Amino acid sequence: MADGDDDVPLILTWDDTSSGLLEEDARAPDPRAQNSLRQSWEMNYQEAAIYLQEGENNDKFFTHPRNAHALRAYLFAHNHLFYVMELLTAVLLMLLSLSEAPAVPFLRLDVYVHATLELLALVMVAFELCMKLRWLGFHTFIRHKRTMVKTCVLFIQFIEAIVVLVRQTSHLRVTRALRPIFLVDCRYCGAVRRNLRQIFQSLPPFIDILLLLLFFMVIFAILGFCLFSANSADPYFSTLENSIVSLFVLLTTANFPDVMMPAYSKNRWSCIFFIVYLSIELYFIMNLLLAVVFDTFNGVEKMKFKSLLLHKRSAIEHAFQLLVSRQRPDGVCLKQFDGLMRFYRPRMTARDRFLTFKALNHSGATMLSLQDSYKFYEVIGLKWKARRSGEHWFDDLPRTAFLIFKGINLLVKSKAFQYAMYLVVAINGIWILVETNMLNVGVSWTRVVPWSYIIFLTIYGVEVLLKITGLGPLTYFSSGWNLFDFSVTVFAFLGLMALAFDMEPFYFIVVLRPLQLLRLFKIKQRYRNVLDTMFELFPRMASLGLTLIIFYYSFAIVGMEFFADVVYPNCCNTSTVAESYRQINVTIGNRTVLEEGYYYLNNFNNILSSFVTLFELTVVNNWYITMEGVTSQTTHWSRLYFMTFYIVTMVVMTIIVAFILDAFVFRMNYSRKNREPLDDPEDEKGIVFETEVSQTEALQTLDLYKHTLGVTNLSSLQDMCVALERSGHSSLVFVGRRSRTKCDLSMKMYEEEIQEWYEEYSRTNLQPDETFHRELDSPEASATNSIN
Amino acid sequence: MADGDDDVPLILTWDDTSSGLLEEDARAPDPRAQNSLRQSWEMNYQEAAIYLQEGENNDKFFTHPRNAHALRAYLFAHNHLFYVMELLTAVLLMLLSLSEAPAVPFLRLDVYVHATLELLALVMVAFELCMKLRWLGFHTFIRHKRTMVKTCVLFIQFIEAIVVLVRQTSHLRVTRALRPIFLVDCRYCGAVRRNLRQIFQSLPPFIDILLLLLFFMVIFAILGFCLFSANSADPYFSTLENSIVSLFVLLTTANFPDVMMPAYSKNRWSCIFFIVYLSIELYFIMNLLLAVVFDTFNGVEKMKFKSLLLHKRSAIEHAFQLLVSRQRPDGVCLKQFDGLMRFYRPRMTARDRFLTFKALNHSGATMLSLQDSYKFYEVIGLKWKARRSGEHWFDDLPRTAFLIFKGINLLVKSKAFQYAMYLVVAINGIWILVETNMLNVGVSWTRVVPWSYIIFLTIYGVEVLLKITGLGPLTYFSSGWNLFDFSVTVFAFLGLMALAFDMEPFYFIVVLRPLQLLRLFKIKQRYRNVLDTMFELFPRMASLGLTLIIFYYSFAIVGMEFFADVVYPNCCNTSTVAESYRQINVTIGNRTVLEEGYYYLNNFNNILSSFVTLFELTVVNNWYITMEGVTSQTTHWSRLYFMTFYIVTMVVMTIIVAFILDAFVFRMNYSRKNREPLDDPEDEKGIVFETEVSQTEALQTLDLYKHTLGVTNLSSLQDMCVALERSGHSSLVFVGRRSRTKCDLSMKMYEEEIQEWYEEYSRTNLQPDETFHRELDSPEASATNSIN
Repeated sequence: MADGDDDVPLILTWDDTSSGLLEEDARAPDPRAQNSLRQSWEMNYQEAAIYLQEGENNDKFFTHPRNAHALRAYLFAHNHLFYVMELLTAVLLMLLSLSEAPAVPFLRLDVYVHATLELLALVMVAFELCMKLRWLGFHTFIRHKRTMVKTCVLFIQFIEAIVVLVRQTSHLRVTRALRPIFLVDCRYCGAVRRNLRQIFQSLPPFIDILLLLLFFMVIFAILGFCLFSANSADPYFSTLENSIVSLFVLLTTANFPDVMMPAYSKNRWSCIFFIVYLSIELYFIMNLLLAVVFDTFNGVEKMKFKSLLLHKRSAIEHAFQLLVSRQRPDGVCLKQFDGLMRFYRPRMTARDRFLTFKALNHSGATMLSLQDSYKFYEVIGLKWKARRSGEHWFDDLPRTAFLIFKGINLLVKSKAFQYAMYLVVAINGIWILVETNMLNVGVSWTRVVPWSYIIFLTIYGVEVLLKITGLGPLTYFSSGWNLFDFSVTVFAFLGLMALAFDMEPFYFIVVLRPLQLLRLFKIKQRYRNVLDTMFELFPRMASLGLTLIIFYYSFAIVGMEFFADVVYPNCCNTSTVAESYRQINVTIGNRTVLEEGYYYLNNFNNILSSFVTLFELTVVNNWYITMEGVTSQTTHWSRLYFMTFYIVTMVVMTIIVAFILDAFVFRMNYSRKNREPLDDPEDEKGIVFETEVSQTEALQTLDLYKHTLGVTNLSSLQDMCVALERSGHSSLVFVGRRSRTKCDLSMKMYEEEIQEWYEEYSRTNLQPDETFHRELDSPEASATNSIN
Repeated sequence: MADGDDDVPLILTWDDTSSGLLEEDARAPDPRAQNSLRQSWEMNYQEAAIYLQEGENNDKFFTHPRNAHALRAYLFAHNHLFYVMELLTAVLLMLLSLSEAPAVPFLRLDVYVHATLELLALVMVAFELCMKLRWLGFHTFIRHKRTMVKTCVLFIQFIEAIVVLVRQTSHLRVTRALRPIFLVDCRYCGAVRRNLRQIFQSLPPFIDILLLLLFFMVIFAILGFCLFSANSADPYFSTLENSIVSLFVLLTTANFPDVMMPAYSKNRWSCIFFIVYLSIELYFIMNLLLAVVFDTFNGVEKMKFKSLLLHKRSAIEHAFQLLVSRQRPDGVCLKQFDGLMRFYRPRMTARDRFLTFKALNHSGATMLSLQDSYKFYEVIGLKWKARRSGEHWFDDLPRTAFLIFKGINLLVKSKAFQYAMYLVVAINGIWILVETNMLNVGVSWTRVVPWSYIIFLTIYGVEVLLKITGLGPLTYFSSGWNLFDFSVTVFAFLGLMALAFDMEPFYFIVVLRPLQLLRLFKIKQRYRNVLDTMFELFPRMASLGLTLIIFYYSFAIVGMEFFADVVYPNCCNTSTVAESYRQINVTIGNRTVLEEGYYYLNNFNNILSSFVTLFELTVVNNWYITMEGVTSQTTHWSRLYFMTFYIVTMVVMTIIVAFILDAFVFRMNYSRKNREPLDDPEDEKGIVFETEVSQTEALQTLDLYKHTLGVTNLSSLQDMCVALERSGHSSLVFVGRRSRTKCDLSMKMYEEEIQEWYEEYSRTNLQPDETFHRELDSPEASATNSIN
């Protein structure tokens, strides 16, 4: 491989100064030329790494840095320090609403404090934008929609912050509702951006059906107004507006059967109106809405996967062209690959870089072909380990210890042990139920440690210890279920300690002990499937939750600006929902009892209360009480806010349902299609690659690294060589593992279609990018080819 | 074809007497043998028709009549008169609960009247069962599970009815809840039976997830009890039972945020408990439930389609074997086919029987092969018509009239006309809204006929007339949308008449006029898709609704037996929901106003009230008020009834959602897969078969029918011959049409899999039935083969 020393890159990137030099005579041992050559290669490695990063992050190539100047800005703006700064600034901006009036009482800050903080954060954002401008160039910057929106919002926020600082008082700042944009734009919030895109893509069909829904609502409102407005005891249909609002609330079933009752008490047949309305709207059109969104979602998911896959392929092609040399335009040798990896994954050890290269290199030749390198993204995440000769961690121990551990190993792996544990858990469950049921009300029971609790906890503790020793800590902790067992047991112990030392604030840990019972669900296949799906879904669910919170945030800000402090006890005595806001002392016998309606607690007085209120509105039961309370204190246009919020949450919730449906059905189909039992979650190994390294190869590589590449940290490679020698075999098999992602599943599901996509892609995208083809076709490049 | 006269059937069915005779010499012109031969054929036709019916209705073949004795009972029990009787008896039995105590006031009957009616109906059912016993034979009768259950229920009901008659008073008759079994068993309720089967098949996975749901509920109940029971102002978590009930209700969100409020007012962080609970239970596990049911539903639908398809195939094979003769065991000729059809579709004209034969006969040979006859069920529903030479109905009219109608035709087909009508409808819609909004409350507005109404109605009337004349009534009414337009317009006219003649009870028709606006949704492709899907779904939806009503009925009976007359105004003053049942006179100023809680109206006092109450429970908002009201008047075990009802409706509702999702996604996938626009619903022609009949063929067939088959009613065939002569062509093309069913769509969707199924079927089911193979393999049959 050392023969690649003088190779000249096929494409010279960014580096205008050295290219002329290289043309002269690339093979001369001129140290200046050598140095320049190395620099060129380094430049290429870096750009290739950037291409691969762009492929991984689904960044469009038109934002690719075009010259060495842009590169510096790009590198500055693309590292974790910068990302964290970006995130912190955005979070700080959002958290400010805790302290801005109307503030959470114990977090209130003076106007000049929070306004200054805001200005500071905004300056940071402006700085970040400047960096982006430098890297993208003005033209691309303008074209990038998200960045433009961010700039505008920044501008407005800036002005407003200054105004606040000058006037020393907050004005009506509804624009604060736009703050989440800064968060959404963060590098780490890619999942949220994807969710938002998906929501917007699902919107057109959603709106269509929504119109149908509203249409029927209006028709029924007219009908209801005609039928029931003559009844003076019926406040729900007294005007057309009331009629529409009543039916809107009825759609969420929040006022059923109340809305029916006055009409029903007058004429029993009037229930038909409501039954027909609910049957059409709630049980038919709402389900249709879900069906349409689900259908769209399905399609969008597949298209997203397709475009991501092709984007990655294109990125690999770009990177490949930058790594090949003029002498060998068809392959990338280890030297170049290693150079790339040093930029792409700076933390990766030399051994892993070498093993990754070997894993990609299916053909066994010294160079990677383009075809080989298409697997790049599948191989890059692997964790490499030499295959152990033995199975167990205790294989190397002395005989007696080995036998003991072997016994424990057999014990914890036996069915009998498992079922005995299930039995213990079941008994524990029944025990807890019975115990709780027999407790006297009001006894501060958490202070008492029942003896049964200690016994069960001891059993669980022993089980955990046995398993850890029997299976070895690594095997034990690699299973999600074991991790769950372990953490529940540890929490229970902590709870016990808290009780023993009487640490009041932690007593709640004790009540978590019923969670042990969750283990019982491991017995059945379906539960394992369901819970595995749950674990797989978790990251996506979290990002969907974050998306929902962003919507909440915007609505909370608007709510606070308009409805802060409008509801309070006994505020709404003129409205139809006065009861729920009433707070009066009632004398029953000779006791005075405070009768509370409590709903005044559902207010927009600060951002935390607003979030709780919005959650209640999301759940939709009795949400109209909050709406009517606020409406009676403000204008009837307030209803618009609540109705809009309902529709927005309906969209997000429908997407969530569609997402769960899709993920679950996908997984079921997957396991059906691949006849894969998905049986024992502990046996599920994820993606596995294997590669064999011979002793001579290892030594050669070590040599190469030492002498030619100038890599300094070679301890990992040296360890490998030592391990090879010690093992006594001529070669050693290394195994790379990673957990399976949704992408892997999709790859397998759409196997056939993927081939079609690739063909279509290579037909239409023969010129995936101008950059390198421009150079390929240039006379200069062909001239160099003719030299060789 | 006349050469088939002396053919001897390959298989002789039921007919033990003549078989020996036929063996002697089938070709002798002995009139006795001839007669016996004809009888044998008739028997075979009948049995083949029965097989085909069984295939169509998905009746299992083990209930097939085994001998001539059973056949008579079978024929008696399988005709529409018997079915109608069956249905009426079942409906009568169910309707009896309107009149039995607690009865609907104006339908109350004396005990001896309704008990006698019931006995009468039960005797009818017993008679039907006897017929079934005769037809099935005792052994099969015992094996038929549904029939056995029915017999047991009948027995119990009989005894109870007699007891009621003797004691002259109704006792606690919970068994009345089993009455729907009689309805479910009716021939016409096959769809309901299928739904029930599907529900039961979806149950196992449903129950699994339900357990997970309940498990979390209990864990959270324990947690909630621990956290909140110390708060004396919080009635929701005072005991473990209350805690569980509160969280069960919270799962349906019916008591949110009320259940949170006492805890929330004490400590603001307690909202986390409720948010976590709802997030896990409502937004995750409930959706998982839907996903699991949807997944199962999907699989079940496909399996159902597969088994139905193979069952039909097997039925066709059975029938085919009965129709072939010993002389030609590979084909069925027209004579036999016609004989079959006379039993299978007695109303079909001779011409249609002939055309059906032609449509099946792809190869053009004189006989149908088994392969040909596999298409039987696809062809059988076709409506045959000679293809018209011209396009329009007015082609044959004189020149002037032709031009006028042609003009109208072009007009109504033009885009301009369509959009003008949309505009009119839109204006009408706005008009109605504005008008309704400006009406004074309480004005009996329905008596006033606004002039705008008359104008719009005239426009619609003219449009309908133009369309009918322009397109011809047949074309016009073949489109669902036109039918809709027509009926809405006619209804509007009727409403106008009702107003003009002041017919009070019909005034509600007037309020239907906003339905015209529904036409606007025709503009957009997606709405057409959605509404078409809606029309397609309608039969299934109706049967699902009926299934729901059956569940309602059973629960209503149980509710009436236990909870009749337990709630009344001011009944529940000791309970937590006293407010909702209160009915007091309140003096405000100097007016006395009746403040009503109205919830006493949600009672189980008679079956109609029970149905309304159960619908309210289905919608789940505030359902716990009804539950707590009843509970406070009875025991706390009553909650079991309400909770069970909730879970049952949850199952059915989930199935309904899964069904709508499945149907919609299926349709979308279908139109995507077949690149079929499904664009213009008026162009969608359904399934079309064509067959060409030449003049000589027609005459030959007429001759055959006249002389050999002895069919008397030949007018249809004669008409065909006349039409052929008149047309002047040597042949005429006949077109058979029918609307597309779900089955046709599935056939196309699963095209590839169907071939696999067939292959698998022919591998494993080489012996689909003992009956005919027993005879095929008998020495008798092979002896006959050797004769020829």
